Amino acid sequence: MTRGRFITLEGGEGAGKSTQLKRLGERLRARGLEVVATREPGGSPGAEAIRELVLNGAADRWSPVTETLLMYAARRDHIERVIEPALGRGAWVVCDRFADSTRAYQGAGGGTDPALIAALEAQVLGAARPDLTLVFDISPQVGLERAQVRGGEMRFESKGLGFHQRLRDGFLAIVRDEPERCALIDAAGSIDAVEAAVWAAVQERLGLHG
Amino acid sequence: MTRGRFITLEGGEGAGKSTQLKRLGERLRARGLEVVATREPGGSPGAEAIRELVLNGAADRWSPVTETLLMYAARRDHIERVIEPALGRGAWVVCDRFADSTRAYQGAGGGTDPALIAALEAQVLGAARPDLTLVFDISPQVGLERAQVRGGEMRFESKGLGFHQRLRDGFLAIVRDEPERCALIDAAGSIDAVEAAVWAAVQERLGLHG
Repeated sequence: MTRGRFITLEGGEGAGKSTQLKRLGERLRARGLEVVATREPGGSPGAEAIRELVLNGAADRWSPVTETLLMYAARRDHIERVIEPALGRGAWVVCDRFADSTRAYQGAGGGTDPALIAALEAQVLGAARPDLTLVFDISPQVGLERAQVRGGEMRFESKGLGFHQRLRDGFLAIVRDEPERCALIDAAGSIDAVEAAVWAAVQERLGLHG
Repeated sequence: MTRGRFITLEGGEGAGKSTQLKRLGERLRARGLEVVATREPGGSPGAEAIRELVLNGAADRWSPVTETLLMYAARRDHIERVIEPALGRGAWVVCDRFADSTRAYQGAGGGTDPALIAALEAQVLGAARPDLTLVFDISPQVGLERAQVRGGEMRFESKGLGFHQRLRDGFLAIVRDEPERCALIDAAGSIDAVEAAVWAAVQERLGLHG
C-alpha cells in the first residue's frame, strides 16, 4: 500500500481556507482518491476537547507558551488517531491548519521561543510532515473583516491588528524558508480564482496530471 | 525580597501526599512563613480545566505522549500564574506532584521518550526548579488499595499493577539520580511517623533549625 499524501492549508483569519478545503477535497475525490478532510486544532474527539479550551475565553486566558503546549497535545492526538492511520491506508489527508500555525500564531505572533517550537516539531510530529503546504495570504484588515462576518470562536480574532500583522509576516517567512514544501496562494481574489490557484499548485507540486 | 523555597511531594497513588502536604504547610506557617499549598495537575484555573481532561475518562483516552504535553501545558499555566508569583514575593510553595510525576507516569510508566520529557523540562520550567523533592514510597498494592478507599478520579488507578510497578521504579530512579534534591520517605508507616520523617527531611535539607 502506497502511503497517502498530506496537504495542509495555512494562513491568518478569514483567508477562506475552509471553503477551499472542501473544494480541494471534492477535486481529489473526483480523481478516485480517498480523502480525509480534517482541521486543527481538533480533528479527533480528544483534540476537539482541547480546541474548546484553547479557542474560547479571554484573549489572555492562556500565555503563548501554554497555548503552544495545548496545540501540540491536540496535534499529537490528531496525528495518532486520524492522520497517521489515514496516510497509512493510502488516503490523502487535507488539513485546515497544522504545525505552521503554531510557528505563526504562538511563535511569530505570540513570541514563544522558536527553540521550544522546534523541539516539539522534532519530538512530537513523527512522520507526519506535510508533502505540500498551501499558505493563504491576505491583508489582516480584510481577513479580520471576513472573520467577523463568519462569527464562531473569536479568541484569536480579538488579539489586535499588531498580532495579526506579525502572524502574516510569520507565514510569509515560512514560505521563504521552505519554498519546496510551501506554495503561496493569493487569497484576495474570488473563491473561484483562489480555487484555480490551489488546484494548479497541487497538480504541479504533487505531480497530478490532466 | 528573598525568593521563597519550592518543595514538591511526589510518589504513586495512595502514598498519603495530600495529608502530609497539609501538615507540612501547617508546620511552616507556624514558623511565620507564607505558604502556598498547591497541586498538579491543576493549581490554577486554566490548569484545573486541563486536569479535568487528563484525569477522567477511559485509561486509553490519551496516549502517553499526548498526556505529557497536556501535563506540561497545565504545569506552565500553574508556574506562570501561581508558583512564580508566590516564590517571587518570598512565599514557600509546597506542591503535590510536579515535573517528576511526568518522568514517572508518562515516562517510566507510559513509555514516553525521555528526550521529549527532557526537552520540555529545559524549555518550559524556567526558574521553577524544586529546592527539595520528597518522594513518598509505598508498594503499589498497598497504595492502590488506599486510593480505592479514597475514590475520586481513577483514570491512572485503572492502568494495572504493571504500570504502577514501573511508576514506583521510576520514582526510585529519580531519587538515585538526584540525591541532593530528593529525599526518600517511607510512606508505609503511620501518618504521624511519616509526618516526622517529612519534617526531619525539610529541616535538614533546607536548614530550618529548632
